[in-house]
Amino acid sequence: MPRYDTISFLTDYGHADEFVGVVHSVIRQLAPEVAVIDISHQVPAHDIRAGGLTLARAAQYLAPGVVLAVVDPGVGTHRRAIAVEVGGGASVLVGPDNGLLAPAVAMVGGATRAVELTNLDYQLPAPGPTFAGRDIFGPAAAHLCNGVDLLDLGPELDINGLMPGMIPITRVEDGALAAEVLWTDSFGNLQLNVDPAEIDEFGPRVELRFGGRTRTGVRHDTYGDVATGEIGLVVDSYGLVSIAVDRTSAADELGIATGDEVILAPLGDDGIRAGVITPVTLKEKP
Amino acid sequence: MPRYDTISFLTDYGHADEFVGVVHSVIRQLAPEVAVIDISHQVPAHDIRAGGLTLARAAQYLAPGVVLAVVDPGVGTHRRAIAVEVGGGASVLVGPDNGLLAPAVAMVGGATRAVELTNLDYQLPAPGPTFAGRDIFGPAAAHLCNGVDLLDLGPELDINGLMPGMIPITRVEDGALAAEVLWTDSFGNLQLNVDPAEIDEFGPRVELRFGGRTRTGVRHDTYGDVATGEIGLVVDSYGLVSIAVDRTSAADELGIATGDEVILAPLGDDGIRAGVITPVTLKEKP
Amino acid sequence: MPRYDTISFLTDYGHADEFVGVVHSVIRQLAPEVAVIDISHQVPAHDIRAGGLTLARAAQYLAPGVVLAVVDPGVGTHRRAIAVEVGGGASVLVGPDNGLLAPAVAMVGGATRAVELTNLDYQLPAPGPTFAGRDIFGPAAAHLCNGVDLLDLGPELDINGLMPGMIPITRVEDGALAAEVLWTDSFGNLQLNVDPAEIDEFGPRVELRFGGRTRTGVRHDTYGDVATGEIGLVVDSYGLVSIAVDRTSAADELGIATGDEVILAPLGDDGIRAGVITPVTLKEKP
Repeated sequence: MPRYDTISFLTDYGHADEFVGVVHSVIRQLAPEVAVIDISHQVPAHDIRAGGLTLARAAQYLAPGVVLAVVDPGVGTHRRAIAVEVGGGASVLVGPDNGLLAPAVAMVGGATRAVELTNLDYQLPAPGPTFAGRDIFGPAAAHLCNGVDLLDLGPELDINGLMPGMIPITRVEDGALAAEVLWTDSFGNLQLNVDPAEIDEFGPRVELRFGGRTRTGVRHDTYGDVATGEIGLVVDSYGLVSIAVDRTSAADELGIATGDEVILAPLGDDGIRAGVITPVTLKEKP
Repeated sequence: MPRYDTISFLTDYGHADEFVGVVHSVIRQLAPEVAVIDISHQVPAHDIRAGGLTLARAAQYLAPGVVLAVVDPGVGTHRRAIAVEVGGGASVLVGPDNGLLAPAVAMVGGATRAVELTNLDYQLPAPGPTFAGRDIFGPAAAHLCNGVDLLDLGPELDINGLMPGMIPITRVEDGALAAEVLWTDSFGNLQLNVDPAEIDEFGPRVELRFGGRTRTGVRHDTYGDVATGEIGLVVDSYGLVSIAVDRTSAADELGIATGDEVILAPLGDDGIRAGVITPVTLKEKP
Repeated sequence: MPRYDTISFLTDYGHADEFVGVVHSVIRQLAPEVAVIDISHQVPAHDIRAGGLTLARAAQYLAPGVVLAVVDPGVGTHRRAIAVEVGGGASVLVGPDNGLLAPAVAMVGGATRAVELTNLDYQLPAPGPTFAGRDIFGPAAAHLCNGVDLLDLGPELDINGLMPGMIPITRVEDGALAAEVLWTDSFGNLQLNVDPAEIDEFGPRVELRFGGRTRTGVRHDTYGDVATGEIGLVVDSYGLVSIAVDRTSAADELGIATGDEVILAPLGDDGIRAGVITPVTLKEKP
């Protein structure tokens, strides 16, 4: 009976090569009873922020156990390989100490302990120094499932010394809310770092400023309620405000991308503009 | 011992985000002994017809159990979430009532019962209204595996009132057969909605009309038998007639896509043209 | 208790269609206790060499059991379907006899026995002749796991008559080493068919000739050590020499692709050029 029976696995490896399968194979041999659930392996290459946010979105839904996450542009440098315990041992997150794990750790209540993965007894001998998922992180995840103690994997680290994640927070300027696109989902909806309560005072129509333009966003309960030609503001499935247009990609339509700033503000002339819906041109499908 | 031990899972979520992994994680926690088999998650976004046909092609090969299918452009509108029992309980298909499930249901003999998924006891509480795979469909699939009765998930529906699928059928016009490309496979072969028996009377060479052009198709037993420069008509691995060219994509070569019409007819002048093979220009590989 | 409990699965099917899922489903029904681990399904279509090299890279890390590999441009022709035993039964590789399996077989010590998969009792009846993964290879893999004897699947073959793989080997010309790019990884690093010992005599700086150009490569222990503007030569995670540049794709930067020739040689004027680092223009990120 394994101590943990599930490993949730996220990387930027892509599926074109054998990397994901090789890590699965290594785990299969070390901990054959453990289920490995792929969260995503298409995090943009080396994009720690995107990987961290993906993991944070998923975090509250993951099965308790080990989270194995590798987006690791600093592989082979002095960045540390770590395992971070949360919930007093409810789960352990394994990966590089580069901020990738931090947003998810924060989502589930913060770290209780952490170690650096230095004990070679729990690593694979590597012909070269670079495939840490296969040689260091994957084996650590498997051994943790098998009941190896966290502190056997390497020396304990001060959890206050771990690399923090970089999650942008909103700021209020002149009565407006400066927000940022956290994520563009596969349908082109733009998730903002905005809790719906932050814009409730602006009412059902909200001024949006981005890329030098000013538009009107209309709050709706569901994506399906967004009318043709309208810019909708819809609370998404993670509880954050997102920008959407009807049946096409808001990102393409509006020319906004992950990381861009969007200012939300009360409409300038409420009396006059309240009924106006700013039309957007719906591009032809290619 | 679960009632069903396998969930076959198809969506248009793609793999770029955590959606597929989150649904796996939800199921893992509700029904840990159940195997989830990914059929495809790269159905074109919102393409109910493509998703329905993919599921229908796979249907006869799926393990008995629950089929979980989500291509759901109407999420958040009034479309119903349903579970459709087939074979008197041999399997249950779970998804939106938008025609997606219909072709597969028809392939395996039709529905025996159906319910609307309204019982909140078998759903996850959602921070927003939109991730039905995670909050409604995935949990329903898991609970069915665990032995929850179909009728506990919500009120029974009249199976005649379910949204039908849209599968094109061939029609005969002036001795010719008007067909449609159902699917372009990953090699560019074009599957038609044509049973081989429908064109047997046309003989080994068949006139093909598409996009204003007329070509000659040559029937072959295997793709490997299609000669260079020839347009082959080959019964594909699902038992339907497909258009293929040698070692390249027929879709690219002929400029035909899924949904396009293709007319099949007896060759105009059998005596004269029987031996003629219409050459096609093989484009350079890029 | 299955004889083999793991099937490692590699194809060029891609994930757009249901092929991978259908093979999983077939195996699930024939051998429900067996784990199927996906190595990759994005081998470039029909690229036997790329598939064979991917499998060879993965081979030493795969769980003992059955390897199921299908890259099969000759499906439906006279190419044979085979199962190749290695290690006296430690594992069995199943796939087409077109050279795909050969590099991996060689990596793990060579074949001990082989059979042609002709016994229809262990195949699925097919509506058409072409989906060998579903109808022939997948079922063979499942039946082998269940303990069916290799020789029950079909007549034994002379292992010396199997199609060899095509792995390029280096050659020495005028004191230089003519090498080839075996593989471009997802980060754009270029793996050469060069063991590090083959270039040790050239010292820490090595002349590189490719595409009519001459550059200087600098050996480093890790990718992180490659300086901006430098061309690094780094032993990769498989123990082979690879070409890398700092934080971007060497393939894009240098205009080299898999299959291209690269000549490695001692630097022309060691005394003069030893300290010179050839700058490369780092293109703007798009």
